[in-house]
Amino acid sequence: MHTQAGLQLDRRPLPPELWSALQARFGDRLTRTAAELDRHGHEESWHPGVPPDAVVFAESTAEVAELMRLCAQHRVPVVPFGAGTSLEGHVAAMAGGISLDLSRMTRIIDVRPEDGDCSIEAGVTREQLNTHLRDVGLFFSVDPGAPATIGGMAATRASGTNAVRYGTIRDVVLSLVAVMADGRVVRTGGRARKSAAGYDLTRLLIGSEGTLGIITELTVRLFPIPESIASAVCTFPSVQAAVECVIGLIQLAVPLARIEFLDAAAIDAVNRYSSLDNALAPTLFLEFHGSEAEVAAQVATVRDAIASHGAGELHWATRAEDRARLWKARHEALWAVNATRPGSRSWTTDVCVPISRLAECIVDTTADMQELPFRGAIVGHVGDGNFHCLLPLDPTSDAELEAAARFNDRLVRRALAMEGTCTGEHGIGHGKLGFMALEHGEGLAVMRAVKHALDPDGILNPGKVLPAG
Amino acid sequence: MHTQAGLQLDRRPLPPELWSALQARFGDRLTRTAAELDRHGHEESWHPGVPPDAVVFAESTAEVAELMRLCAQHRVPVVPFGAGTSLEGHVAAMAGGISLDLSRMTRIIDVRPEDGDCSIEAGVTREQLNTHLRDVGLFFSVDPGAPATIGGMAATRASGTNAVRYGTIRDVVLSLVAVMADGRVVRTGGRARKSAAGYDLTRLLIGSEGTLGIITELTVRLFPIPESIASAVCTFPSVQAAVECVIGLIQLAVPLARIEFLDAAAIDAVNRYSSLDNALAPTLFLEFHGSEAEVAAQVATVRDAIASHGAGELHWATRAEDRARLWKARHEALWAVNATRPGSRSWTTDVCVPISRLAECIVDTTADMQELPFRGAIVGHVGDGNFHCLLPLDPTSDAELEAAARFNDRLVRRALAMEGTCTGEHGIGHGKLGFMALEHGEGLAVMRAVKHALDPDGILNPGKVLPAG
Repeated sequence: MHTQAGLQLDRRPLPPELWSALQARFGDRLTRTAAELDRHGHEESWHPGVPPDAVVFAESTAEVAELMRLCAQHRVPVVPFGAGTSLEGHVAAMAGGISLDLSRMTRIIDVRPEDGDCSIEAGVTREQLNTHLRDVGLFFSVDPGAPATIGGMAATRASGTNAVRYGTIRDVVLSLVAVMADGRVVRTGGRARKSAAGYDLTRLLIGSEGTLGIITELTVRLFPIPESIASAVCTFPSVQAAVECVIGLIQLAVPLARIEFLDAAAIDAVNRYSSLDNALAPTLFLEFHGSEAEVAAQVATVRDAIASHGAGELHWATRAEDRARLWKARHEALWAVNATRPGSRSWTTDVCVPISRLAECIVDTTADMQELPFRGAIVGHVGDGNFHCLLPLDPTSDAELEAAARFNDRLVRRALAMEGTCTGEHGIGHGKLGFMALEHGEGLAVMRAVKHALDPDGILNPGKVLPAG
Repeated sequence: MHTQAGLQLDRRPLPPELWSALQARFGDRLTRTAAELDRHGHEESWHPGVPPDAVVFAESTAEVAELMRLCAQHRVPVVPFGAGTSLEGHVAAMAGGISLDLSRMTRIIDVRPEDGDCSIEAGVTREQLNTHLRDVGLFFSVDPGAPATIGGMAATRASGTNAVRYGTIRDVVLSLVAVMADGRVVRTGGRARKSAAGYDLTRLLIGSEGTLGIITELTVRLFPIPESIASAVCTFPSVQAAVECVIGLIQLAVPLARIEFLDAAAIDAVNRYSSLDNALAPTLFLEFHGSEAEVAAQVATVRDAIASHGAGELHWATRAEDRARLWKARHEALWAVNATRPGSRSWTTDVCVPISRLAECIVDTTADMQELPFRGAIVGHVGDGNFHCLLPLDPTSDAELEAAARFNDRLVRRALAMEGTCTGEHGIGHGKLGFMALEHGEGLAVMRAVKHALDPDGILNPGKVLPAG
């Protein structure tokens, strides 16, 4: 099934001349200690790690370009690494080579409040940027929960809890600086809000997972910090009632900032992990942004709509610290579910379907989840039609891996039959290679042609996004 | 300068075997009457036409694929044609070949109010779609003014007057069906609101102007028809005051549905052409969408903000027919300016800059426009930082063409120095080929590699987007 077995590619030892050249250039920012190789070969998921042959910590676009030119000369793979928070084996060095760690590229190059944008290096995180921005009244919106780098978010086409209002990383990036396979540095655009000047290289690189180029700098849109923010929690008598309520709210076009679903199992895990006492029922976490008047109007609309779906009371978190506690609990759901089963690692599914099919998709998936040999949970960015099953499995058990893979296979086929996608926001990595042909058909050949044109030697993150042809 | 002189490519006669094969397949939907060849070789601008060798009217994706396979066999160029409303010579058959007319592909395949999306063939226009949608309370937002096909809008990455609120065509397309250079049919995605499954072929095709593939079907997002709509007109003592007011409103993040600038010359032309009596002064046309309460709140904010910029009274158009008259006048500005000078054709500039630089850019451009040997006018989608100089020139006068080209060259360099773009929404065609290297640098080589990978024989709309290497 769709495990990584057999996916590992041929690897040859690092050429000694390349090692010497890298040592001369990067000094002690080149390393091959066992701890660093191990850390750079895996991320947060159940996927077994595949360590690189060496790690380079780059500090500028120019350094990335130099590294890339050296590796191109020797045809040695380069695997970009940000915070290591991805979930589909994106950083595994399937064919060995260099792990290029961009986490030290944390320069905030320029903030332009008058245009509502800023330019940053790829290693900047959401938290770092938003702390920096606090005094100018703006914020960076994309919030995948994990402490990812923004370069990594762009590489994997991330989104998260407030994409329903502010869009995904695809929508907020104005332009990129990227290093291509031969070391050329490309700036994909300026700062205009729109452009019709040629092919959209910005969007081509976003979601390419380091297989077409290495994103080193980004210019992104920012949004004004809302005058008023209110969060609420609300339980429902059934999964179906909760999700049908979401569908109703989306169809009413209420500009919700966040609308997150947690099933009873997820609530149970979060309660234990974060010492909370939410009622054990299918639950929505909601957030409203706007002026005081706008938020009041949104809340009134939502209150009426949810009542007709049998919802319980709206429990409010209006103080900033209560809101932070609520969203921290939501964002820690992955670890909370892992903690229900010591020693487990999570297999996290990620389908996304048209909103009208969401209730059916989640209800069918919930039924299917009962057959698993361990207890999973569901959380979701349901306003986008996107949800995750968190499957805390024993990574040493072939039977559990097989069961999870079969479950995921059925789930993806269910989502595709509903005109959805196998991944709303986590990407392909090597974990979902098996679904690319199913989802894209002839489109896969077009993707392969683009990959071959931009990386003819296949040295940019080999073994990811595109299954072997 | 940047005229089409010398850009025409080698052309060879249509192979007789291809002609026979096309005749057998398309019958009287294959034509080479002089009138049709002429009509299909040019659009609305001053650019001289370059007629194709034949025109085929396709009626389905399967037919487009068949045509493409036949033309690929014979290495004969195919130039897609929608409504012929583009402005940069996009439909000129620079190397001869077949003009592929998609305007008969007007099927509305499916409307799904519950998901707020629909699937259509490429020849559907905004007007046709919105008439069809009226009863379901939804509308298609992208409004470039001209009666373009939606396939053509996608091919040129169009936007228009309400992109400031609802986004450009890039933002509202969920997925495409396209025919590639070898006749393969690709579906670039499903209907999920977001996906991280591989390269973004949707965005790669949007704005590729028929040079990477031929868009035959689109799935697009729709928006609820707002409960309340209000439009207003407002004059300013100077161009600078008007544009600084726009900058202020955008920075306040008022969710304006439209905010359009017209200089005094544009107002004068529009008044004459549409028998209106607007005051001859720099003017903003505004539109507000929302619930009654939201519109009232937006109007209050705007009223305060514009007063501080020396604006005159807000003149309201609240009845649907008054609003329609107002926007019809705005959308006819191009023809209105041409009508100020009988026999002229318009050279339309299209730069877009970061909003904070817009006043400086327009003021400098206004001064530069005084030096032209004819009287131009400025209109703009100023909320996006995008504006057009409408230059009604005598297309038989080399001196006027040279003067316009020099003016445009200075304007583009001014915009690029401000981190803007040479084209916000009209695209490159062959009219702006000369700016691609200046705007994109190394990025141009990446675009060329993608083009070569997807159309190795260069038969998809040759001579557009990418200057000869």
